[in-house]
Amino acid sequence: DAPIEADTYHMGPGTLRISRKVLHGKLRARLLERLQAALPEEKRGLVLLEGGKETHLYSSDGEPLFRQESYMHYLFGVQECDWLGALCVKTGCSLLFMPRLPESYAVWMGRLKGPEEFKAKYGVDAVHYVDEMPDVIRGMAPPCLHVLHGVNTDSGLTVSPPQSPAENIPLETGTLYDIITECRVIKIPEEIEIIRYANVIGSAGHIAAMRSAKPGVMEYCVESAFLHHCYTAGGCRSPMFTPIAASGTNAAILHYGHAGAPNDRQTGPGELLLLDAGCEYYVYGSDITTTWPVGGKFTPQQRVVYEAVLAAQRDVERAMKPGVAWTDMHALAYRRILEGLLAAGVVGGGSVEELLEADIGGLFMPHGLGHFLGLNTHDVGGYPPGSPARSSRPGFRSLRTSRVLQPGMVITVEPGCYFNPALLMPALQDPVKSKYLVRDAVLSYMAVGGVRLEDNVVVTESGIERLTQVPRSPEEVEAVMAGADWP
Amino acid sequence: DAPIEADTYHMGPGTLRISRKVLHGKLRARLLERLQAALPEEKRGLVLLEGGKETHLYSSDGEPLFRQESYMHYLFGVQECDWLGALCVKTGCSLLFMPRLPESYAVWMGRLKGPEEFKAKYGVDAVHYVDEMPDVIRGMAPPCLHVLHGVNTDSGLTVSPPQSPAENIPLETGTLYDIITECRVIKIPEEIEIIRYANVIGSAGHIAAMRSAKPGVMEYCVESAFLHHCYTAGGCRSPMFTPIAASGTNAAILHYGHAGAPNDRQTGPGELLLLDAGCEYYVYGSDITTTWPVGGKFTPQQRVVYEAVLAAQRDVERAMKPGVAWTDMHALAYRRILEGLLAAGVVGGGSVEELLEADIGGLFMPHGLGHFLGLNTHDVGGYPPGSPARSSRPGFRSLRTSRVLQPGMVITVEPGCYFNPALLMPALQDPVKSKYLVRDAVLSYMAVGGVRLEDNVVVTESGIERLTQVPRSPEEVEAVMAGADWP
Ligand SMILES: [Mn+2]
Ligand SMILES: [Mn+2]
Repeated sequence: DAPIEADTYHMGPGTLRISRKVLHGKLRARLLERLQAALPEEKRGLVLLEGGKETHLYSSDGEPLFRQESYMHYLFGVQECDWLGALCVKTGCSLLFMPRLPESYAVWMGRLKGPEEFKAKYGVDAVHYVDEMPDVIRGMAPPCLHVLHGVNTDSGLTVSPPQSPAENIPLETGTLYDIITECRVIKIPEEIEIIRYANVIGSAGHIAAMRSAKPGVMEYCVESAFLHHCYTAGGCRSPMFTPIAASGTNAAILHYGHAGAPNDRQTGPGELLLLDAGCEYYVYGSDITTTWPVGGKFTPQQRVVYEAVLAAQRDVERAMKPGVAWTDMHALAYRRILEGLLAAGVVGGGSVEELLEADIGGLFMPHGLGHFLGLNTHDVGGYPPGSPARSSRPGFRSLRTSRVLQPGMVITVEPGCYFNPALLMPALQDPVKSKYLVRDAVLSYMAVGGVRLEDNVVVTESGIERLTQVPRSPEEVEAVMAGADWP
Repeated sequence: DAPIEADTYHMGPGTLRISRKVLHGKLRARLLERLQAALPEEKRGLVLLEGGKETHLYSSDGEPLFRQESYMHYLFGVQECDWLGALCVKTGCSLLFMPRLPESYAVWMGRLKGPEEFKAKYGVDAVHYVDEMPDVIRGMAPPCLHVLHGVNTDSGLTVSPPQSPAENIPLETGTLYDIITECRVIKIPEEIEIIRYANVIGSAGHIAAMRSAKPGVMEYCVESAFLHHCYTAGGCRSPMFTPIAASGTNAAILHYGHAGAPNDRQTGPGELLLLDAGCEYYVYGSDITTTWPVGGKFTPQQRVVYEAVLAAQRDVERAMKPGVAWTDMHALAYRRILEGLLAAGVVGGGSVEELLEADIGGLFMPHGLGHFLGLNTHDVGGYPPGSPARSSRPGFRSLRTSRVLQPGMVITVEPGCYFNPALLMPALQDPVKSKYLVRDAVLSYMAVGGVRLEDNVVVTESGIERLTQVPRSPEEVEAVMAGADWP
């Protein structure tokens, strides 16, 4: 283990130790290099990021647990709300601005730490109070403030710049967003180490969940077993996203588990359970899906679907390396899944080529094959300027990126095959699509619900490293469900 | 168990069954009666409430788990985001307006339920789409729309009214807020039953947490044991508030556990752990605090502090009944705590009367004795118009209500005694206050940290019913820590 210094983040014995100074220092240095390359000397100002603010539960005094905004966390690692951070593009000097809390807060929040203590904690060059910011920034006399301004390509939401804290210093919105977003796409080794840790903990959380299950268990008990393991054994306080614990036909609902469908079904014997859950450590996360029979044994139909999805995942992971287009991997997944369904007689009426051409793949896997992963579950940078545009083809249009793989990208590989009535029932009525569907077989497979298998991988120089370590073959899954050791 | 109907909320076998139709029907009927009493017939319009909206994690597509706004939940129990609800003050007719989602959402969110299905689920008179709302409301031709407008007395935040969905129908902001807020203060039996359930589950969660602990455990493991029990055994997905699991001197920090101090300390032998945690079921909650030695045995100093707090809690609960002023209960708690500290030689230099007069109580318990509890942890209605104003006296000014007790109020009883350096170190320097503090004793007690004991009680016609059932005497606590059965 690395030693525990003032700037070390960790959650106690056995948890990962992170040097904030090293991690964020390296991330700032790389950003600085790219900004300097993009900006002539006289246009090099001060990067200014506004961190997340305190929020309330509606009008009450309830305060949801604060979670830092991802760009702010990326550059500075600040855990507390209402901070700002700055980075001088000329000198590389890093600054933080902290709120000045009244002394009386100490009774409620604990001893108030001052700028010097936070400077050591965050490993920056200086920490000032927010109320000193206008003077500090004016004193540095930057030609401008480089601020975030752009659109998140998954949410469509605009990242809006903060107001200038010094009236006469203009905001510059054209440079920072694209450059820092691209930095976030290519992870440095220190970031990969955290995501690897979140995968070690999250993988073990899936095992704990599998072991907790038996027919009749409520879906949410499986979710809770996952959460409890990740927190207790890994110090991961929050899930990376609302867990999906979907049994039976619920597995076909891609975002099951939300408030309107809150993992509240009782599982039945012979059903599959699809668990899509990841944990968060130091704001970085994992995003893992396993699918397994609550009763411990796959039925023949479940196995057909499972093996088709597993073949897709294995072959995609084998084919992945720098230079490979993600859209080709998506197509490869469709090919393997359709091959499996064709062999089982669920689809037909043509060759796999014809089925692919007719977009039958999207009827069974309507989502993209995977997404970048990092400080957000659907991490940024999927469609930057100059990269291939979003496809309009069914299935492909849901892809969260269409980029060519590069070393350092962390991406999920999550093929799935679902029997979703909202897609398949209309398709059975459709004159073109129904040609390729074997009606009785499709209807008889509806009870399978769906299978998704999701790994997190990092692209290396020659291929990938798989970060997720969960049982994948049906034999491994059945063995773990029966109590075998894992790994 | 009540039968499971279309309008039943429950989380599976063994969890509480709630008839939405009965619960919200009664709550609406009582509100209606009071609004009719307050409004002449020609001024009786339509109550219009806007529910909570979908939120995002900053600019990402991450969606935090939706939690309904409390007033909207109170009247209608709607679990989903982006709804509105209306109640005709003339006729009592209840209406809901649901968002019209595109058919394609079915793939991601599950089969789309229509208005008829939701009408049965929520037990209202009619459900329409939000886009039909202007026409529906115009068709009812109400003289005005009664909307929420007021200030939450705990947060200081303003509850702002929605825009009128029909231009020519004016908003009326003067009536609804105070009346519905007062309704929320006095719980009906169906509400008390839910809070009782949240207390049964939360109490057992505390027992699970106590049993999981031993010296060296991380504070967050205790938190996780609580959460896991409440979810698995009770179907309570969310804590009512961010849990506080504070060991050693952290127990003196009233709101420990937040993002800047996230229950991340390793406990030591001989320390107390203060666990303030409650769970949420159907948005109603519990708020329970236990304090216990991680090693299983109280030290003599810990026992002194613990017994002083316990005496305060017991005597307050014995004294509570309709007609009693909450401020008097707060003073009674100070009296018992100071008596305990006086007997132990921690305070001195005067009688208990003199210590009370000199506000020495507030140095050891700087927070209020308790708060209303319901759909918010700090539930609404503490300082309504016409009730006693907030005191400016130390300790008393932190009271979240100064009201006289009435049957149906659900309130926490949470005396505490803390050795908080932010309060006591300056007091030891203060010429007046230091007179009453035994310096060496105060300093030697600092390591105790603090003790808080929090029960949830409902005021009855003749006294109270305690909803919380956790071990309280030092003997009970030590027995449970040693593995004895509870209850
Ligand atoms: Mn994913
Ligand atoms: Mn409380």
